[in-house]
Amino acid sequence: MSSFEVLRPDSGTAARRGLLRTTHGDVATPAFCPVGTVGAVKGVTPRELKETGADIILANTYHLLLRPGVKTVEELGGLHKFMSWEGPILTDSGGYQVFSLGSLTKIDDDGVEFSSHVDGAKVYLSAEIATRIQNQLGGDVIMCLDECVCFGCEEAQLRRAADRTICWARQCRQAHTNSQQLLFGVVQGGIDLPLRTQCVSELVKLDFDGYAIGGLSVGEGHEAMIKTVSHTATLLPEDKPRYLMGVGTPADIVAAVMAGVDIFDCVLPTRNGRNAFAFTENGPIRLRNNARANDPKPVEGGCDCYCCKNFSRGTIRHFFNVSEMLGPVLLSLHNLRFYQRLMAQIRQAIEKGEFADWAGERLGKYKALYQ
Amino acid sequence: MSSFEVLRPDSGTAARRGLLRTTHGDVATPAFCPVGTVGAVKGVTPRELKETGADIILANTYHLLLRPGVKTVEELGGLHKFMSWEGPILTDSGGYQVFSLGSLTKIDDDGVEFSSHVDGAKVYLSAEIATRIQNQLGGDVIMCLDECVCFGCEEAQLRRAADRTICWARQCRQAHTNSQQLLFGVVQGGIDLPLRTQCVSELVKLDFDGYAIGGLSVGEGHEAMIKTVSHTATLLPEDKPRYLMGVGTPADIVAAVMAGVDIFDCVLPTRNGRNAFAFTENGPIRLRNNARANDPKPVEGGCDCYCCKNFSRGTIRHFFNVSEMLGPVLLSLHNLRFYQRLMAQIRQAIEKGEFADWAGERLGKYKALYQ
Repeated sequence: MSSFEVLRPDSGTAARRGLLRTTHGDVATPAFCPVGTVGAVKGVTPRELKETGADIILANTYHLLLRPGVKTVEELGGLHKFMSWEGPILTDSGGYQVFSLGSLTKIDDDGVEFSSHVDGAKVYLSAEIATRIQNQLGGDVIMCLDECVCFGCEEAQLRRAADRTICWARQCRQAHTNSQQLLFGVVQGGIDLPLRTQCVSELVKLDFDGYAIGGLSVGEGHEAMIKTVSHTATLLPEDKPRYLMGVGTPADIVAAVMAGVDIFDCVLPTRNGRNAFAFTENGPIRLRNNARANDPKPVEGGCDCYCCKNFSRGTIRHFFNVSEMLGPVLLSLHNLRFYQRLMAQIRQAIEKGEFADWAGERLGKYKALYQ
Repeated sequence: MSSFEVLRPDSGTAARRGLLRTTHGDVATPAFCPVGTVGAVKGVTPRELKETGADIILANTYHLLLRPGVKTVEELGGLHKFMSWEGPILTDSGGYQVFSLGSLTKIDDDGVEFSSHVDGAKVYLSAEIATRIQNQLGGDVIMCLDECVCFGCEEAQLRRAADRTICWARQCRQAHTNSQQLLFGVVQGGIDLPLRTQCVSELVKLDFDGYAIGGLSVGEGHEAMIKTVSHTATLLPEDKPRYLMGVGTPADIVAAVMAGVDIFDCVLPTRNGRNAFAFTENGPIRLRNNARANDPKPVEGGCDCYCCKNFSRGTIRHFFNVSEMLGPVLLSLHNLRFYQRLMAQIRQAIEKGEFADWAGERLGKYKALYQ
């Protein structure tokens, strides 16, 4: 049985309603993965996370590699047991964090050496090592090592990074032997469309279980990002899942689904939640605002999340005001529910054949409210 | 119907298995109240709190008075709605925090003036105001304003504080008009037994719904505390509930139940939980310890709490190591469950007529493990 199936392609856009099958269960796509950076979606217990509607979550290889270390995760029973999450888990390769968080000390075609952002220890990552580490962690969907460059870097650097990403993809493909895990190739190339084309063309030859689009949402802006996603998604095999890494705002997600993306991950719902920012269908609510102090309404009227069903804006504002953990916890829960509800609405609109109209209307609304 | 009933007095000790009836539900006693300082038991959602077995919780008038303010709690629907706790709530008078946290600027027989520990604002509290504030907050069990003194203060100061506490109790009794709330008198007098006797004698004349024993667990030590509790409890009316404020360790609780106490509150399970200290029947486990890094066992074997059923010591240790909120959250949950299980065992032992033996054995064990 194939690990991915398009259940219903949308007639008006490139969107697809699909199903990703993994060792730890099925994922209805388009899907959003909450980010469990160090083995936990910050402040959210797995059962609360499940309740928001999440099918699949992401864990960061880079962070787990540094603390508690891969050996410890293995000794504690593997990533699912370690995190107490029984459903599918996607792990990234660590590449993105090496380039954004670590102090990169050496990079060549063989791999990268970097200093841990925690204690400065030297760590080495090659395509083979990144694959083996992800094999050991035991996620259901794993990523090839890729090189990420800054937005606006020189063309030569962009090209070299794409070439290296292709080269590493070959090595990862070869190193990966665990059939319980789906291996995704990562398309790089910035917003250079011919380079994206070339990268896709090389990766597709390797016949990955799925394809990630990396290196976006790094400063290029919504329009340039969607143009690149649209160009790239069209080139990718129709019968394989497409994952847009680290994206994004509600408008980004709706537009990327229209462009044919199936899977997303992003820290926005939880990071913003911890910063007292709530997503609602009527625009953001900032819960540190004095105007919320005596507001007896829920964060979002009609929302079925635990936060909205039980607490007023006034209480949540008070929790932030007195640095009570429940503020970040409850608002993360609400924002995660907002994102999962968005994904459910997207899936439903595709199923009903109403996605193009629905998405056009939502895209305009979210752009006005959140950008 | 009386608000308190002794269902079964223990034959071997002064312990009683009882029932406290409040506007928001019944409480099986001996009972332990988790402390919801600012309107939340830190990091624990009300449904998780309920799951630990808590019937009743405590909220601190002093903290709520300063933030968000009594008017705001009222506007947000009263304390139960504000905290999203449907069960019984006990509020203290604010007295203890005025003396321990606030910068006391003036005290006389009329009341106390203090500077807020938050912003230095001057706040005035009299017996009447403390009662009215608690009426407005809407807790089910409220306390008379009392004066707390440091352990080891001069006899004259101790006596003056006890006299003032009695005087304020009269004023609180008079000011309290809400029959939906049970008003408890607070016995002061340090470890001066004749002074405790005198304080009880005056308070009992006022016929309160229950009696709190205050001013203990402030440095006098377990033996002196239990001696005082035992002396005081014996003098209190048998048909009224007895509440030992701010106590304590597992050994303190077992010994105080033996002495005839019905209700407890203490920050130990949550404060220690936040500091990576777990209570278990085999003694404390410190979850920051490196020795726990690869430990796949639950915090406490056989424990039915969410933390122990889902996470290893290794994961909890990792959460503390990376400052992940779930560390404090999960360990607070475990410790609260430990305390509620202890109370359930106490109630069961009394019901079975086995309490004296059970308590003797437990007291020895807990003293050895936790003191």
